Amino acid sequence: MSDPIVFYFDFSSPYGYLASERIDELAARFTRQVKWRPILLGVIFRAIGGAPLTTIPLKGKYSLNDFSRSARFLDLPYVHPEKFPLATQQAARAYYWLHDKNCAAARGFAHAVFRALFREGRDISDPELVLQLAAQHGADRDTLAEALNGTALKERLKAENEAALAKGVFGSPYIIVDSEPFFGADRLPQIERWLATGGF
Amino acid sequence: MSDPIVFYFDFSSPYGYLASERIDELAARFTRQVKWRPILLGVIFRAIGGAPLTTIPLKGKYSLNDFSRSARFLDLPYVHPEKFPLATQQAARAYYWLHDKNCAAARGFAHAVFRALFREGRDISDPELVLQLAAQHGADRDTLAEALNGTALKERLKAENEAALAKGVFGSPYIIVDSEPFFGADRLPQIERWLATGGF
Repeated sequence: MSDPIVFYFDFSSPYGYLASERIDELAARFTRQVKWRPILLGVIFRAIGGAPLTTIPLKGKYSLNDFSRSARFLDLPYVHPEKFPLATQQAARAYYWLHDKNCAAARGFAHAVFRALFREGRDISDPELVLQLAAQHGADRDTLAEALNGTALKERLKAENEAALAKGVFGSPYIIVDSEPFFGADRLPQIERWLATGGF
Repeated sequence: MSDPIVFYFDFSSPYGYLASERIDELAARFTRQVKWRPILLGVIFRAIGGAPLTTIPLKGKYSLNDFSRSARFLDLPYVHPEKFPLATQQAARAYYWLHDKNCAAARGFAHAVFRALFREGRDISDPELVLQLAAQHGADRDTLAEALNGTALKERLKAENEAALAKGVFGSPYIIVDSEPFFGADRLPQIERWLATGGF
């Protein structure tokens, strides 16, 4: 059986959201699983340089238009959030906490976080919203609230970030199929051909 | 009749080369013309920040692989040149000189420059090679050599760069369809749908 595809993303990444809506069904067509790995782009940018797209001269304005257009191109709803970019460590930590208990619940939670931000413009940096969404996916609210304040979960996310950097992850989405890396939601067609042909 | 599509590129841009091999036939299917506009990414990067992809930590290594893979995905030959990145002002100036005399010859010259660099790994920063390729596309070698040393052609390229910046061009390829900008060879499928539907 093939190794799972690894899908690295930051919950505040518009192109990460677009990929999140397509990657599982794409992989399933080739009987492949996907491991979801939220990371913090801010940490990556501090390590290797880089900045949120929307803060870059000229590219920022272009990107705002491209987010929406790329969503329409993929037939996905997209509303650019007023608060952007924003902190995603609570959402990412809650993801790993849920994941260690129930992988499917964590997947549902991740979709809910992405959609809260990019369909409803909600503030996913708010720990209350993170707890609410996690509770809707099976988390015990108080236990998770305590875990989010503890060091174990912080260390867990830190380790995931470091592992991602070691794999060469420099942006979101960053998708590894076997050992082949693909950066960007616009690489989904290449991933499809890669899965269909075993590499090209 | 619709305005021509405008295709901005730097002759040292791998994704610019990929787009150059597809943009005319794509436009022609929708009875559209394409205006080719070589620019200097180095000038753009000095104005707004930015750096050649291959010099960026992690992204550099990824990009080298992605150039070749994206070429294979588009069924195009690609050999990454040993000398890279490299200066392209002589090629760009020769392009505009030819263009003012014969648009079709300039198009052929531009293809020849891109292919010399990205299929044969030749040094297109060498004025001798630029003159040779231009002569193969109808230029009088000595007249062009003199023009390349004059101020008029330098000013011409400077003006083209400034006009591109004013249009929001921040990278290569940057393709404007009517007033809609598309950045990257990976936006060709979006351009196709845009041309087919009049916008989406």
